[in-house]
Amino acid sequence: MLKEAIYHRPKNNFAYAYDKETLHIRLRSKKGDLVKVFLIHGDPYQWTAAGWSNTTKPMTLEGSDDLFDYWFAEIKPEFRRLRYGFEIYSNTESAVYGERGFSDKDPRDSGFYFCFPFLNSVDVFEAPSWVKNTVWYQIFPERFANGNSELNPKGTLPWGSADPEPDTYFGGDFEGIINNINHLVKLGITGIYLTPIFKANTNHKYDTIDYMEIDPQFGDKKTFKQLIETCHKNGIRVMLDAVFNHSGFYFEAFQDVLEKQEKSKFKEWFHLREFPVQAFPEPNYDTFAFTHMMPKLNTEHPEVKQYLLHVAKYWIEEFDIDGWRLDVANEVDHEFWREFRRAVKVIKSDVYILGEIWHDSMPWLQGDQFDAVMNYPFTNASLEYFAKDKINADEFAHQLSKVLTSYPRNVNEAAFNLLGSHDTPRILTICNENKEKLKLLFLFQLSFIGTPCIYYGDEIGLTGENDPGCRKCMIWEESKQDSELFNIVKKLISLRNKHTAFGNEGEFTFLETNTDKNYVIYSKQSVDETIIITINNSSDHIDVNIPYDFTNKEPVNLWDYSKQKDTSKIELTPYGFSIILVKN
Amino acid sequence: MLKEAIYHRPKNNFAYAYDKETLHIRLRSKKGDLVKVFLIHGDPYQWTAAGWSNTTKPMTLEGSDDLFDYWFAEIKPEFRRLRYGFEIYSNTESAVYGERGFSDKDPRDSGFYFCFPFLNSVDVFEAPSWVKNTVWYQIFPERFANGNSELNPKGTLPWGSADPEPDTYFGGDFEGIINNINHLVKLGITGIYLTPIFKANTNHKYDTIDYMEIDPQFGDKKTFKQLIETCHKNGIRVMLDAVFNHSGFYFEAFQDVLEKQEKSKFKEWFHLREFPVQAFPEPNYDTFAFTHMMPKLNTEHPEVKQYLLHVAKYWIEEFDIDGWRLDVANEVDHEFWREFRRAVKVIKSDVYILGEIWHDSMPWLQGDQFDAVMNYPFTNASLEYFAKDKINADEFAHQLSKVLTSYPRNVNEAAFNLLGSHDTPRILTICNENKEKLKLLFLFQLSFIGTPCIYYGDEIGLTGENDPGCRKCMIWEESKQDSELFNIVKKLISLRNKHTAFGNEGEFTFLETNTDKNYVIYSKQSVDETIIITINNSSDHIDVNIPYDFTNKEPVNLWDYSKQKDTSKIELTPYGFSIILVKN
Repeated sequence: MLKEAIYHRPKNNFAYAYDKETLHIRLRSKKGDLVKVFLIHGDPYQWTAAGWSNTTKPMTLEGSDDLFDYWFAEIKPEFRRLRYGFEIYSNTESAVYGERGFSDKDPRDSGFYFCFPFLNSVDVFEAPSWVKNTVWYQIFPERFANGNSELNPKGTLPWGSADPEPDTYFGGDFEGIINNINHLVKLGITGIYLTPIFKANTNHKYDTIDYMEIDPQFGDKKTFKQLIETCHKNGIRVMLDAVFNHSGFYFEAFQDVLEKQEKSKFKEWFHLREFPVQAFPEPNYDTFAFTHMMPKLNTEHPEVKQYLLHVAKYWIEEFDIDGWRLDVANEVDHEFWREFRRAVKVIKSDVYILGEIWHDSMPWLQGDQFDAVMNYPFTNASLEYFAKDKINADEFAHQLSKVLTSYPRNVNEAAFNLLGSHDTPRILTICNENKEKLKLLFLFQLSFIGTPCIYYGDEIGLTGENDPGCRKCMIWEESKQDSELFNIVKKLISLRNKHTAFGNEGEFTFLETNTDKNYVIYSKQSVDETIIITINNSSDHIDVNIPYDFTNKEPVNLWDYSKQKDTSKIELTPYGFSIILVKN
Repeated sequence: MLKEAIYHRPKNNFAYAYDKETLHIRLRSKKGDLVKVFLIHGDPYQWTAAGWSNTTKPMTLEGSDDLFDYWFAEIKPEFRRLRYGFEIYSNTESAVYGERGFSDKDPRDSGFYFCFPFLNSVDVFEAPSWVKNTVWYQIFPERFANGNSELNPKGTLPWGSADPEPDTYFGGDFEGIINNINHLVKLGITGIYLTPIFKANTNHKYDTIDYMEIDPQFGDKKTFKQLIETCHKNGIRVMLDAVFNHSGFYFEAFQDVLEKQEKSKFKEWFHLREFPVQAFPEPNYDTFAFTHMMPKLNTEHPEVKQYLLHVAKYWIEEFDIDGWRLDVANEVDHEFWREFRRAVKVIKSDVYILGEIWHDSMPWLQGDQFDAVMNYPFTNASLEYFAKDKINADEFAHQLSKVLTSYPRNVNEAAFNLLGSHDTPRILTICNENKEKLKLLFLFQLSFIGTPCIYYGDEIGLTGENDPGCRKCMIWEESKQDSELFNIVKKLISLRNKHTAFGNEGEFTFLETNTDKNYVIYSKQSVDETIIITINNSSDHIDVNIPYDFTNKEPVNLWDYSKQKDTSKIELTPYGFSIILVKN
């Protein structure tokens, strides 16, 4: 038994409240080392009396990565208080593990054990319930559709007439989105994420000049209201992009600082290192990255907080937006985000707060700050396996298990699962334009835990390298759209809507990963149904035995609702897949 | 190299902001496995350019427990942002470790590494600076001194005339404390912690009836003001006990619920499970433990929050108290404590917030809730080694290293280090009345990192088993006080005040732990001075070689400021100790 590999610490992904009465407990151990694990548990104030023999519960093996196994148990403590530990067995040894370490047997001292002192409702992580059932669509407004050519900025090129350069304009706007709402409805989209729409100097608008104004190239507040109403009427929620880490260089407050220097009333709004403040040759103020065009905002300053929170509330109150995506969220202070959450949730309790964080985000997902982060670890694993062939089936499963066990399950259910964005090459391009691979990516994304997001145009086969290539104009001529791809994405989304097990209600489990033949089999199990998905990520025809007992079941091929004949052996074409449904 | 033993995760004791410009990074590895560890670090936005060879920093071995070594490095990133990982060496292997796992060499991809995205000042854990230099004294007011016999409750016994029973009264009060303030001044005390003083039905007052009123047996608000003024005039700060997890049974709001049941306007102030609410045969409402006399308060309810925060602010604003000790703090919601912190720090920015938590408390010590918790792991280790002989010198060092590495260093510096309280047997009794052992306990406590607290009477040799035995009347007849003990405690406190290295400015390091001979040697090193303390925890005379290079130093025996002659061999009497000072 490798004691050094065993890990547990409460109040994060290892022990958390799943809901107001349920705790989830996890234990990490060396891969393959333990054969049985039991959760020892009791009320902190009854510990001695209860003994342990009648208060253990077997834990299940939830997943494994390259080094570790992860064990899981769910428990509903009667008085919402829990002391607990682990009774662990290898093939040759057993031990009891608690906060004070290892013991041969139960020390019958509650102080030896871990503690989850009280399950207070207000501390439970809770994302808006609608998010779990949402399929997002990310729109880069400048490139989605040009609905009103009168708003075109100077030098706007004809739609799609050229590959975009960093400073190209094609005149995309709100009317363009409104006019094409049917495209989204048809696809099954239920949420739009718009990259920034506020007054700015660039086509991407991440350099905000005025957080209270719509950029005139997109329309005015009236058109924006129409856009929201059109979306809501069509069952689509709308999320905006909040760039609160930094402003644009031409933000009025920063311009005031440059002009009035020490006399500016905004001098504490930024992190200025010295006077005179200057942008060249090197900025002597904190910036996003090293970009003098994006001065970092001092979000600790009361006036800055008040201003930004006013902005956050304004667009909810006046326009009824449904979510905020927070740019460079990890570099802003936690205290600001806590205040942000309180401020916006008071106005609209089910607003979605999504942070842009690329790394481990547990400190932001404790219930007091974000509802979700952009799930880049999911993105990386999926692209490396399906698109790039950089990792094999086992490694893919390890990475995914690591993602899932790194967070509470209620966090995973609201995670924003993207495959690409305005900051990454187009996924079809990453797939080397192999559309069969792209289909697998969509299948995996749309059947996984979390809330998937499709980057505009990926569903009709847009290509392009990294920015600016990935920001091409959306193609609206149907003949030039990949309608086969569109229909497959549409079908996958409809499966997610029809079968809750396909989406977030289905517990995700890898049934098999085969590195030789390069396929994976996983199940999604809800209370009623189990869906078994097999994906052949190879260019070969393969036969697969599904490790699932179909005795007395009536398996259905979910792709065409036909009866699934032979379940012992499934034949898959190159990059083929199979989706089988059984009632539990 | 045992990869499974290696652990790191940012934003807790493993990576935290020590101050507004300094980050501390720790790595855990299997004990004795690694021989060298380097921190690889760089700005997140310069990673690729910087390479790694010029951005590594050696980490030092900070401590070890029974299974693990802990490595430490301090770093001040120029732009307050950090990507980092670890270059690790065993005797036979090397590897690079980051958020994505292990790699043979630097993957030159910043995404592989850990991230501390930005050091925002407001998120830095910061306890009041005065706390580090405070020596606390815990007073149980009913038993410290009776200064005004007119306030005596019915049935009050003559002072010290009997051993206390659970419901005995001896009439201790505020005037008693005021009259005896010189005892504390003489000892060197700079902070008093008073157990509850609010109106209640018991002698311990943990069953609050009215949080806005002083219990009449202690005095009135005028006397309390005098007490605070007397303390402040004598350089002593005052901390009160806030019992906010639950009220007393006779708290007006709860009585109203019992009387008016569903019609009570206070029915949401508690966690009622059904109506009619009743205390017998079993309470059908949530309680502290299973005590029907202590109904749990619903601290999520706006009115309850408002009331309790009003209480918290009132005693600071009106009486200028300096700290709140929070009873059963772990069972109250985090959100309440965040609001509590904001509310009290606005009024008095350097008020001390101390939580009663007996287990791992990292989630409460992130900077947004408490300044400290009661350091029971310190208590346990110290008592088990010095008082009970239950663990040996190595185990003692392991437990202490675990305590220290479980928290950020700035947290350790404000930790409330107690040896006993009104809830535990008297330390002299735990020492089996071996006063020599008690002296070692005091020596260790008063030379350790944190802020020590002496339970009233321990300094003059009070004895007693667990409650009610540990709540005997303070002895004021000097002939019956142990004045030798008093003078030793006094001297140790004065050393703490005179030599910053003796207290919190001194970095604590075990130099040697000898389980055979049962001694420990540790150093406390500040910028100017190093203090080397050797403690013989055995009943034998021993000779000890101090593993410290005294070449060209002029060691001083700190106990009498004599020149320390032979430093290569120190002779120690049974339970003897040596304190040597050298200038760096």
